[in-house]
Amino acid sequence: MRRWRALVLWLLASFCAAAQAVEQWDIFEVELRGPADGNPFVDVQLGARFSDGVQTIEVDGFYDGDGVYRIRFMPPHAGRWTWVSQSNRWPLTNKQGEFTATPPKAGNHGPVGVRFGHHFGYADGTPYKPVGTTMYSWAHRGNALEEQTLKTLATAPFNKVRMLVFPQTAGIDKHPPEFWPFASTSGTPPKDGDHDRFNPAFFRHLEQRVGQLRELGIEADLILHHPYDDQRAWGFETMTRAQDDRYARYVVARLAAYRNVWWSLANEFDFIRTKTDADWRHLGELLQRTDPYGHLRSIHNGKRIYNQAEGWITHVSMQHGMAAAEASRAVLFREAWRKPVVFDELKYEGRHDRRWAQLTGRQMVHAFWSTTIAGTYGGHSEFIPDADGLIWLAQGVALRGESPSRLAFLKQILDAAPPEGIDPIDAFDDLFVAGQPGRYYLVYFGQQVPTEWLPRLYLTGLRDGQRFKAEIIDTWAMTVTPLPAPLQFRPQGRYDFVARDAIKLPGRPGIALRLTALDTPAGPGAQRALDD
Amino acid sequence: MRRWRALVLWLLASFCAAAQAVEQWDIFEVELRGPADGNPFVDVQLGARFSDGVQTIEVDGFYDGDGVYRIRFMPPHAGRWTWVSQSNRWPLTNKQGEFTATPPKAGNHGPVGVRFGHHFGYADGTPYKPVGTTMYSWAHRGNALEEQTLKTLATAPFNKVRMLVFPQTAGIDKHPPEFWPFASTSGTPPKDGDHDRFNPAFFRHLEQRVGQLRELGIEADLILHHPYDDQRAWGFETMTRAQDDRYARYVVARLAAYRNVWWSLANEFDFIRTKTDADWRHLGELLQRTDPYGHLRSIHNGKRIYNQAEGWITHVSMQHGMAAAEASRAVLFREAWRKPVVFDELKYEGRHDRRWAQLTGRQMVHAFWSTTIAGTYGGHSEFIPDADGLIWLAQGVALRGESPSRLAFLKQILDAAPPEGIDPIDAFDDLFVAGQPGRYYLVYFGQQVPTEWLPRLYLTGLRDGQRFKAEIIDTWAMTVTPLPAPLQFRPQGRYDFVARDAIKLPGRPGIALRLTALDTPAGPGAQRALDD
Repeated sequence: MRRWRALVLWLLASFCAAAQAVEQWDIFEVELRGPADGNPFVDVQLGARFSDGVQTIEVDGFYDGDGVYRIRFMPPHAGRWTWVSQSNRWPLTNKQGEFTATPPKAGNHGPVGVRFGHHFGYADGTPYKPVGTTMYSWAHRGNALEEQTLKTLATAPFNKVRMLVFPQTAGIDKHPPEFWPFASTSGTPPKDGDHDRFNPAFFRHLEQRVGQLRELGIEADLILHHPYDDQRAWGFETMTRAQDDRYARYVVARLAAYRNVWWSLANEFDFIRTKTDADWRHLGELLQRTDPYGHLRSIHNGKRIYNQAEGWITHVSMQHGMAAAEASRAVLFREAWRKPVVFDELKYEGRHDRRWAQLTGRQMVHAFWSTTIAGTYGGHSEFIPDADGLIWLAQGVALRGESPSRLAFLKQILDAAPPEGIDPIDAFDDLFVAGQPGRYYLVYFGQQVPTEWLPRLYLTGLRDGQRFKAEIIDTWAMTVTPLPAPLQFRPQGRYDFVARDAIKLPGRPGIALRLTALDTPAGPGAQRALDD
Repeated sequence: MRRWRALVLWLLASFCAAAQAVEQWDIFEVELRGPADGNPFVDVQLGARFSDGVQTIEVDGFYDGDGVYRIRFMPPHAGRWTWVSQSNRWPLTNKQGEFTATPPKAGNHGPVGVRFGHHFGYADGTPYKPVGTTMYSWAHRGNALEEQTLKTLATAPFNKVRMLVFPQTAGIDKHPPEFWPFASTSGTPPKDGDHDRFNPAFFRHLEQRVGQLRELGIEADLILHHPYDDQRAWGFETMTRAQDDRYARYVVARLAAYRNVWWSLANEFDFIRTKTDADWRHLGELLQRTDPYGHLRSIHNGKRIYNQAEGWITHVSMQHGMAAAEASRAVLFREAWRKPVVFDELKYEGRHDRRWAQLTGRQMVHAFWSTTIAGTYGGHSEFIPDADGLIWLAQGVALRGESPSRLAFLKQILDAAPPEGIDPIDAFDDLFVAGQPGRYYLVYFGQQVPTEWLPRLYLTGLRDGQRFKAEIIDTWAMTVTPLPAPLQFRPQGRYDFVARDAIKLPGRPGIALRLTALDTPAGPGAQRALDD
């Protein structure tokens, strides 16, 4: 009888395991019960090994309070996966199970990674063209505001949001954070946070918001460290290395299974006066080592630029409004580090008394187009307070600037561009032409207001007599006006191909020309790349 | 009797040793006789340890042909130095001696190193403001031309010369290299150079030229590798790693004692298709390890920028004409790597059909002023053939361009500027003001042609009511015109100090304004550096 009962139980368990199914790049979660005494955040190590028979992936688990432990896994392939846990506590170790990862449904393209050296793409091959924004504290300001922010995002052009993990001071009096990341007995915000004990409720709330961004198709660029502490009283900047490490591992254990997560190690790292470059490198390499999925990793600067050549950095996250203001400047950072460059902060649209938040809508749109021509990416935010003092940069909630609709228009252009991305065509002199040689060009006149232009392209990839569909783009009025006839290009001089006649241009700022090849470009053998 | 003779000999030897005296930062040389059979370049290791009782410095010796070995040493301090040789051959090892290093005479300032993060200075504390030029092959073209080049340099503004160690093809038919760096039996240039045997005569000649530059107060930026081989037949680019290493060590052993030497690992490194970045790093670190004096080290790019963050690189040696054309671009490379930046190649003044040699004199001068405002440095050369096809860029000989006189004028300005160097004052928006906060400013209007300007300076270092001597500089006409009265500055708004009235400007391109403090600047405590 007992053997029969064991068999039935085994069959039942097998059936349940097999029935457990999760989409590829979605989250499979194991829940275990374990010790609740002592300090489980410090005392208990937990992890699991997941395997589909070909690939084995080790992930950390985490303590979620009340004796509950969780292990999260984002299957990178469809198929049957098995898992086994390891822990330094008996109730948690050597637990096993299996589940099926099903093919991804529409809208699930997997995590974003670097493509073509300077660009991005989803794991399923779909190009990803970032049009990001920053709302530092949107997930710390209570459900009413946060739900409103999500509604705004649902129709906004942004597909990436920079957001803080730790709360910041700004706006805190009117909208105190509902949760605190660390255990505390003295209310919110506490001055006596115990940096050795996390508050699971805080992270569950954060995860909910990250998950909601995921459902909206928005990447969450999570900022782990920032210098916006309340008069430095909260102690985020003076945690020990052990606490910093534990914090990074905890965030990775909880959130790496969200496919839309990026790691931004710090905002304005150089304004955090308590860490050296070696500390940042240590933490960046820790993220690299512990995140089993290799989510994108960056570090954002204030005035001092970090050594972006370090191997753990997947892409450059740059604050530099001056550089982003002209393609000929922005491209230099791309050349300097040969990684994707995102100008996550290029000043803000706004009416602040600080000069970092005084861009007009036109200047913001110009910066986005400039960074595009440079083969880099821009980043939006705005500092335009409403009657209650709420600003998009801090709380999110509502957009009031003139740029977002134009950024939506730019996004359409980007999405229709070649999947390899837009690369600078020739930066030997002032850079204003980008695209893919012989196939696609954007010519951006910026703040110049020409009334005509003789189309001229650098020779690489072009074929004598090749014809292009030509469209005049007004980046501010958001119009695309085709020219009546195709342009035909012929070689001229050592470096260029030119059209026969000059074309008329509107004589307004913010005009671009889009050229799309109607004929096959020159083959690779004819790509006469000159050593100049 | 034999004991008396030994004593006399010992006294005589001591007297001779003591009489041996050499200036600090000049060259002390030991000559030894050793084996001439086999291949001494490969078979024989030789070095010596020099000590003044406080510091011990190890240097490599080298084989100079015909059984002669030499060890060269540049004493970094005045005083009595002793030396002892080490070798894997009996006749060369454990030789000993001593000499006195005397204080440096006028004009001997020692080797140049990095100062104030982004600038340069001689070892004796004298600032060094590079105004460099390039003459790749000037030392390979025979005595007649070379003597003429030295005469030209004696009155030219240049205090640094970029020059190749290995010969290049250009101009070789009319002016073949007199010497070849490697042993060969088949004439000049040989196709069968034995890369395991150096030609001492070649290096003796090179040393003579480097020494002559030193006497002229000119730094020799020696380029060890280049891609300008004769149809790749000479084999400089395909030496083995052992040969590359031996070459680097031989050059260091022979030339490091010349105080005016800099090491440029390669010219257009990326056009040398036979080495990886790891190879360059290896060679750069070898230079760093084997040069006992730490002469400046760099690597110059073609189109692909090297990772300038690598530790062996002391300063950025950049080819980038587009970036050097505007201060707001050039400054980005300074920010990216936080090292001195020298735009050793920013295109050439010339009338070539290639676009890298089509700058007008005005454009060359503008680039030098732009790099100055960026807190970086320019580099000159010209491609203006004479009747025989000689060009400064290749053979040197004579200058024909319009820029050198204006660069001499700029050099006067630089030499009169603060010893700490000229730093960008505020690059938050377009950069056009540089200097030292509160003490000295250069305002450069570039290609703009304003007829008046309200003087406005970023606040750091300024004191309310502070007065400045003001001079209008015409960078092309080479005039300095003082304004009749000092300018007085008062705070305005959050960021600026402004003068009371606008000043008149000439309405021509290439105008600068020099402001020199007449009153004490604000103390360090008042340096209100805003986090913006």
